Amino acid sequence: MSSIESGNILVINPNSSEAVTRAIDAAVEPLRAASPFPIIVTGLRDTPSGIALQSDADQVAPPVLQTMLAHPARGYVVACFSDPGVTGAREVIAAPVRGIGESAILHAMTRADRFGVIALSASSVLRQRRLVRVMGVAERYAGSRAVDARAEETTNDALLDRMNEAAFRLVADGADIIIMGCAGMAHFRARIEAHCQRPVVEPTRAAVAALIGDCLLRSCDV
Amino acid sequence: MSSIESGNILVINPNSSEAVTRAIDAAVEPLRAASPFPIIVTGLRDTPSGIALQSDADQVAPPVLQTMLAHPARGYVVACFSDPGVTGAREVIAAPVRGIGESAILHAMTRADRFGVIALSASSVLRQRRLVRVMGVAERYAGSRAVDARAEETTNDALLDRMNEAAFRLVADGADIIIMGCAGMAHFRARIEAHCQRPVVEPTRAAVAALIGDCLLRSCDV
Amino acid sequence: MSSIESGNILVINPNSSEAVTRAIDAAVEPLRAASPFPIIVTGLRDTPSGIALQSDADQVAPPVLQTMLAHPARGYVVACFSDPGVTGAREVIAAPVRGIGESAILHAMTRADRFGVIALSASSVLRQRRLVRVMGVAERYAGSRAVDARAEETTNDALLDRMNEAAFRLVADGADIIIMGCAGMAHFRARIEAHCQRPVVEPTRAAVAALIGDCLLRSCDV
Amino acid sequence: MSSIESGNILVINPNSSEAVTRAIDAAVEPLRAASPFPIIVTGLRDTPSGIALQSDADQVAPPVLQTMLAHPARGYVVACFSDPGVTGAREVIAAPVRGIGESAILHAMTRADRFGVIALSASSVLRQRRLVRVMGVAERYAGSRAVDARAEETTNDALLDRMNEAAFRLVADGADIIIMGCAGMAHFRARIEAHCQRPVVEPTRAAVAALIGDCLLRSCDV
Amino acid sequence: MSSIESGNILVINPNSSEAVTRAIDAAVEPLRAASPFPIIVTGLRDTPSGIALQSDADQVAPPVLQTMLAHPARGYVVACFSDPGVTGAREVIAAPVRGIGESAILHAMTRADRFGVIALSASSVLRQRRLVRVMGVAERYAGSRAVDARAEETTNDALLDRMNEAAFRLVADGADIIIMGCAGMAHFRARIEAHCQRPVVEPTRAAVAALIGDCLLRSCDV
Amino acid sequence: MSSIESGNILVINPNSSEAVTRAIDAAVEPLRAASPFPIIVTGLRDTPSGIALQSDADQVAPPVLQTMLAHPARGYVVACFSDPGVTGAREVIAAPVRGIGESAILHAMTRADRFGVIALSASSVLRQRRLVRVMGVAERYAGSRAVDARAEETTNDALLDRMNEAAFRLVADGADIIIMGCAGMAHFRARIEAHCQRPVVEPTRAAVAALIGDCLLRSCDV
Repeated sequence: MSSIESGNILVINPNSSEAVTRAIDAAVEPLRAASPFPIIVTGLRDTPSGIALQSDADQVAPPVLQTMLAHPARGYVVACFSDPGVTGAREVIAAPVRGIGESAILHAMTRADRFGVIALSASSVLRQRRLVRVMGVAERYAGSRAVDARAEETTNDALLDRMNEAAFRLVADGADIIIMGCAGMAHFRARIEAHCQRPVVEPTRAAVAALIGDCLLRSCDV
Repeated sequence: MSSIESGNILVINPNSSEAVTRAIDAAVEPLRAASPFPIIVTGLRDTPSGIALQSDADQVAPPVLQTMLAHPARGYVVACFSDPGVTGAREVIAAPVRGIGESAILHAMTRADRFGVIALSASSVLRQRRLVRVMGVAERYAGSRAVDARAEETTNDALLDRMNEAAFRLVADGADIIIMGCAGMAHFRARIEAHCQRPVVEPTRAAVAALIGDCLLRSCDV
Repeated sequence: MSSIESGNILVINPNSSEAVTRAIDAAVEPLRAASPFPIIVTGLRDTPSGIALQSDADQVAPPVLQTMLAHPARGYVVACFSDPGVTGAREVIAAPVRGIGESAILHAMTRADRFGVIALSASSVLRQRRLVRVMGVAERYAGSRAVDARAEETTNDALLDRMNEAAFRLVADGADIIIMGCAGMAHFRARIEAHCQRPVVEPTRAAVAALIGDCLLRSCDV
Repeated sequence: MSSIESGNILVINPNSSEAVTRAIDAAVEPLRAASPFPIIVTGLRDTPSGIALQSDADQVAPPVLQTMLAHPARGYVVACFSDPGVTGAREVIAAPVRGIGESAILHAMTRADRFGVIALSASSVLRQRRLVRVMGVAERYAGSRAVDARAEETTNDALLDRMNEAAFRLVADGADIIIMGCAGMAHFRARIEAHCQRPVVEPTRAAVAALIGDCLLRSCDV
Repeated sequence: MSSIESGNILVINPNSSEAVTRAIDAAVEPLRAASPFPIIVTGLRDTPSGIALQSDADQVAPPVLQTMLAHPARGYVVACFSDPGVTGAREVIAAPVRGIGESAILHAMTRADRFGVIALSASSVLRQRRLVRVMGVAERYAGSRAVDARAEETTNDALLDRMNEAAFRLVADGADIIIMGCAGMAHFRARIEAHCQRPVVEPTRAAVAALIGDCLLRSCDV
Repeated sequence: MSSIESGNILVINPNSSEAVTRAIDAAVEPLRAASPFPIIVTGLRDTPSGIALQSDADQVAPPVLQTMLAHPARGYVVACFSDPGVTGAREVIAAPVRGIGESAILHAMTRADRFGVIALSASSVLRQRRLVRVMGVAERYAGSRAVDARAEETTNDALLDRMNEAAFRLVADGADIIIMGCAGMAHFRARIEAHCQRPVVEPTRAAVAALIGDCLLRSCDV
């Protein structure tokens, strides 16, 4: 991470799983060719290997902010769907800060009426509901469906069937667009989309793309 | 408009005021340097010179869609705060379509808690309330304040005092961020921001910046 | 339409299907005996034969308003469930203006707790959700269920089974009253009501009845 | 009340003030000429002289229902803005039942965006807020302003200044239409409208007019 | 009831079923050992044997208030899930007043995200929806499921299977915690909890426990 | 804190100000006489001296949970109005956990219609709005007004005038009950109540009182 400079976009994986960090890096790779700004992905140490519980999200919020403060960048993406530390960071950091949960939801709202979220676990469903309420967008929310996986499994192809099933149920629940409720699963996106016949949003990619827009906007508003 | 190609971003001013079209073009100019995609601005003919009433917005929705259909582009921005034709276009056009009202609001929601909108007129206030409700984001809305101007006046410096006053009242109403509720007023943005001490969002610029993100995202999701 | 005078109620079918116009005329026929005001039904030309997409609704809004302006009446009903042109007309026309979507919903809210809507198509469902949100009555909405028909089919008895099925599902979704989400299907009303054992609201009839009340009220408020 | 027959519309004043009953009768008088149905107004005995507190509203709900059960009619209007007994009556009475609070609000929603209510007292404000919430229409509600009067005073011209002041404040609060939050004040309607330059809805008249529509609709749905 | 003194907590069963009153007394018995205040349970006479319809709830509201006024106490619990008379009593009685519906809901909101309610009947479901809306907590409500029983049956063990089934369906509807929507069924609580694997709230016990807290708070705020 | 046993109620002040911890201890003192359970108050070390920003709240959430895990108790109160760590703790701790923000709000909802909150600072206002949204009770919220103080000042009598002013403005905003949005200010409660003529809720006391109820309920549900 030594090469991070203030002109880069910094994507922070709050958990300590290097596999997830690599999957996030792969997810944003297709954005790099056309992005006006370099995109750097980094992970944290001494944090849980996955954000399973609210207390895990609580635990990583402070080191997420510390990482931002230590590494000046053009903009930041927090690559955990619970958006830990994002609201706090916006009060103390001038550069744009994006969480992948909020960003995926706002993006989905520009493409379809109601969004549904594939959640890793029952506890994730609860965090997603709270995120939706705190954002004030519950009228657009068709719900979440859990696949009962751990974050570390998100790179495992065996998850695909369960994700397809969850997407299918979300469509039955009234979702017009599906959001993948976890980072590091971009490799499943196109296949779920083909299966459920609805657009599927990969949140880290959506957040980085939105942040590029934010950075462009800030650069001309200064 | 002969040079519009499918790789461009096309910004459509739905009213027939050439002064407004030029102001919009000037507003997006600072984005062009870093944008990965060319940004073209066009106006319509045979439409009202400003969108003062809901029936004006109704009237321009069909020609807005016709313009999109006639001019394949990478993505579209409808540069009227009432977002005429945007929802309809999304059902028939594959490329991303953005309205400046929706885009400014969603962008504001990533930077502050409650947004307030400077409206040109009392009728605009009503359209903004309906936009907020149809988007399902009323819990984040501090309200709108009208400056009683016509769209054609938006290039007139005499409006600044009234806009500053409206921004000031919106802050008193609980707005944490101010949105300019009309295209073509970008030249006032920085001065209103300095006056009310809150971030001020210029909607066309916000929409084009967000659309650039959308286009980047779509390009890697295909 | 030459006989339309300012004392009549004018019901406008925004699509160009004469069969639908005739079905609407038949639907309001039972109201004529007791109505204090004559009820005239008219169709439009050069509009789509059915309002399938949002862009269809957008397209008919201007001619709906033109028709009102050209034909002074005591009050107007726009007989398309998407209420095209209604909000715009209210800003420029002094007489009461009713859309059948809004009217059916508000009427249903006086008879039962949650309403559900039988929609012609998936795109209609989306328009109904937006109508419910812009009206600000989402807390009373049990949802919509589509029968995958075109407006032109609404006079076809073969639709009945699918409408019964949709009504049945809406009851399971928590609807206490069912609204037929399209004009021109009044002939099915009683049979669906018998099938689902909940009140079923025919929207054009509900709108004309409500408009009669509006006209009575206006006459004594002047 | 001996002449009440099942073909009449019965308007029930739940309080025991004969002056209020007479004022209600006068309010609906202009509707009688064109109404297809006779309109009878009756008061209750042994109820409070005004509905000042929630416990007053609670107290009159049972006799309101008893009156309906004892007097078969084509339809009923409960002429108290708190709509006492209305929801309960709808479960046990087949004929349409209208409360003036609900009816005035739903009517206002067809004429303007946000409604505000002139309340007699601070306790009335609380009941109006609860009515708005139970109806599920809070997104359209600009608020209530109290004039600190008792129901018995509603026939007193001295109230007009305070009502004008309340209407003026409601407009400043964002109300686009004003509802008189009490029966028996119809004689003030036109003057408040002239003062605040917004439409003013007299609730008993609005409810009776709407009920006429309901009765027409029911007669053709049977 | 002769021993009721102002230092007691008075629990009022609004219906006239002595079996239900006894069941309520048994339900609060486990609270008595540690409660700082005596807990007295009383029933009403000349009221319906169960609150099946809204008009039943309307009918008991006045005698509930009369009972409070006749029996000074430290605090009151109205042991009917429709909370009849509670809002009215709060305007005229200084001591804390709790309804078991409101109390169970607010308690559930501190233990889980979304609550679901087991309702006795379809009419109860409607009252519960209205209670949730008037409380303004609809975003936390997963819905109600009816078991089609009368209040008098609530002491009958044969109900358990249907209640288990309702609880199971509520969990499928997204409820994280289950509320028993009727007094007098405390003896089922633990078994339903074991069956559905979610916390189950008995509302009378929850209300009395909360009222004890209220009384403690009031005693130190005076 | 060595004497903390599993039968006690443990109140945790998340900030490191010993003056605030002492003020909290004094606030709950009047509850101790009648409480069935001992009430212990403790502070944290190595946390900020006040919770001014969201990042301060984020920072204390992990040590709040650690404190609970290290000190088994009958129940816990987190004595910071932002409720840091509360939701997370509820997933991993079996005993009841209360935050003072949530508890004060839910208590206020049983005593009056709309609550308003006196906030220490503009950043606190934002956290309170988010708390209200995540709780899903925005329809009952009249807003927050800031006094621009730091937590350390809350024991300073000079704050009273500003708090009175804030309470007065909240009443004008439509608040029927006032909540003190910070721990450690109980000594001002009665004076603000006398000034604004509305009930004023001290949140720590309200939370402890409610938790006593929770503990009584849990003891009989086991």
